[in-house]
Amino acid sequence: MNEFELINKFFKPLATSKESFGLTDDVAKISLEPDEELIISKDLLAQDTHFLKEDGGYKIAKKALLSNLSDLASSGSTPFGYMLGFSKNDTLTHKFYEDFTQGLKEVQDEYDLKLLGGDTIRSKTLTFSITIFGKIKKGSALLRKNAKNGDSIYVSGYIGDSYLGLKNKTNKYFHDKHFFPSPRIKLGQELLKNNLSSCAIDISDGLLADLNHICISSNLSAKIQLDDIPFSKEAQTLLYTSKKTSKLDLIAGGEDFELIFSINKDSEEQINQLAKKIKINLTKIGEFYLDKEANTKVDLLDSKNNKIKTNTDGYIH
Amino acid sequence: MNEFELINKFFKPLATSKESFGLTDDVAKISLEPDEELIISKDLLAQDTHFLKEDGGYKIAKKALLSNLSDLASSGSTPFGYMLGFSKNDTLTHKFYEDFTQGLKEVQDEYDLKLLGGDTIRSKTLTFSITIFGKIKKGSALLRKNAKNGDSIYVSGYIGDSYLGLKNKTNKYFHDKHFFPSPRIKLGQELLKNNLSSCAIDISDGLLADLNHICISSNLSAKIQLDDIPFSKEAQTLLYTSKKTSKLDLIAGGEDFELIFSINKDSEEQINQLAKKIKINLTKIGEFYLDKEANTKVDLLDSKNNKIKTNTDGYIH
Repeated sequence: MNEFELINKFFKPLATSKESFGLTDDVAKISLEPDEELIISKDLLAQDTHFLKEDGGYKIAKKALLSNLSDLASSGSTPFGYMLGFSKNDTLTHKFYEDFTQGLKEVQDEYDLKLLGGDTIRSKTLTFSITIFGKIKKGSALLRKNAKNGDSIYVSGYIGDSYLGLKNKTNKYFHDKHFFPSPRIKLGQELLKNNLSSCAIDISDGLLADLNHICISSNLSAKIQLDDIPFSKEAQTLLYTSKKTSKLDLIAGGEDFELIFSINKDSEEQINQLAKKIKINLTKIGEFYLDKEANTKVDLLDSKNNKIKTNTDGYIH
Repeated sequence: MNEFELINKFFKPLATSKESFGLTDDVAKISLEPDEELIISKDLLAQDTHFLKEDGGYKIAKKALLSNLSDLASSGSTPFGYMLGFSKNDTLTHKFYEDFTQGLKEVQDEYDLKLLGGDTIRSKTLTFSITIFGKIKKGSALLRKNAKNGDSIYVSGYIGDSYLGLKNKTNKYFHDKHFFPSPRIKLGQELLKNNLSSCAIDISDGLLADLNHICISSNLSAKIQLDDIPFSKEAQTLLYTSKKTSKLDLIAGGEDFELIFSINKDSEEQINQLAKKIKINLTKIGEFYLDKEANTKVDLLDSKNNKIKTNTDGYIH
């Protein structure tokens, strides 16, 4: 299949907004309302680093777009479109293209996204790149640098299910958590709309590593309680029955695509109400503090408030 | 070198605008004036398809950014920033990083661009992706679909020098034309500002192939005169002395990153004046016409107006 057939048959049906010029041009356009600004995130994904070809087009595409959406979720913005860099070679089957575009289409439909444009190339190993666009009220983005001394630290959902799905692809629950994360778009939007938070990050490198990113950017330290970190029933059962996996493995695993966010202590009751409203588990796991020696560090504490030795670098892709 | 060292040492100095949040977040932001819209182009570049590792970081980075700027030039927009997807592996030396970022810096300085953000990954084969942003007056972009029946066809600069640089990297003139193209930003802006054109494309696939893209999008045919296609003095000398290379090779070669654009016949004198003003060779090579059978095709004619047999697909990456 040549580039033009590929675009016409598979990508054009995904590009129905006028911003994409029907994919006939090298460029796309975006307009904004006067009170809006654009939030952008870009991901690059390489075969054997981020995905295996054997995963198939559907899982590869869906996870790529969902995890990129997660970056927008952490800013609190409302996604609307993306550009796709797509590589192909002669090992790709017709079914791969079908599955890949089906995966994109499902995410587009769920999150009201459109393909705006991109680039199609040939390469020996597969590589994909997504640049995703969201809109937000001017100057309002949730940012890593905005955590305040004394803020409570919250995390959404459960930690470690994606890691368990990477290790054990035959368990459907964990498998789906690994390949089909739930970008917390609604949560980011609600935190922003209700002025509940000004600082969030999505967990890609691992809970400790990403919390550490907030600490560095906000010039604060964090202490979190191991016993407060939320694990799914399924993960708890596995931790109980298997000696091979520990809670620390789950925390370091990464790719949870949950949000870590900061909250003023006075807002905790509102967070409980928000959790019920949007039906997402929101758990307080600790707090930010100003270290006397101006260090920025993340302390993980056991039930007796003793520090657990960890590698805050967590999982680096 | 880990990802954070790489970002802090090499990429942060390129990201000096507030839109990039100092590269501390996963996202960047962009604002627009009420009468502006954003023009976006995205390229994906793979080792051994678009570049050789032996080309070195300087040439790879510079050509990547310059050729992406050429997409913006074809829209008539004014570039201001880009997102970078960067892959690395253990074969990259400190010098590669230095050279790569030096190449980016030189293009940034020449075209008043800033790095806004991006993604850094590990991959066995190198892959880079650039998403570039320009601003334009709302609704004014030069587009492939806007050519009109009877419009004259113009091309900027000279055709084939880049192809000759690919074939013969020891000739400095051709080498530089291949690795350091001149995106025709100023030309696109002037065509737009002076209402001289509404249709342009940059030559990446080859003069015939890219002219064919305009024909398909505008539902027109084109006839161009081989004798009118502009070749540099250096290329003419080579054509004269070497029997191995023909004009048709140069036309099909691609990666000229010159603009093909349409002009109302009445505006030809203004184009001549513009060429003098911006000191870029602008040459009329033919015209668009409405084929009676509603075909869209590109006819290349010899001095006796006979059709030369060509493959309009030209060079497909």
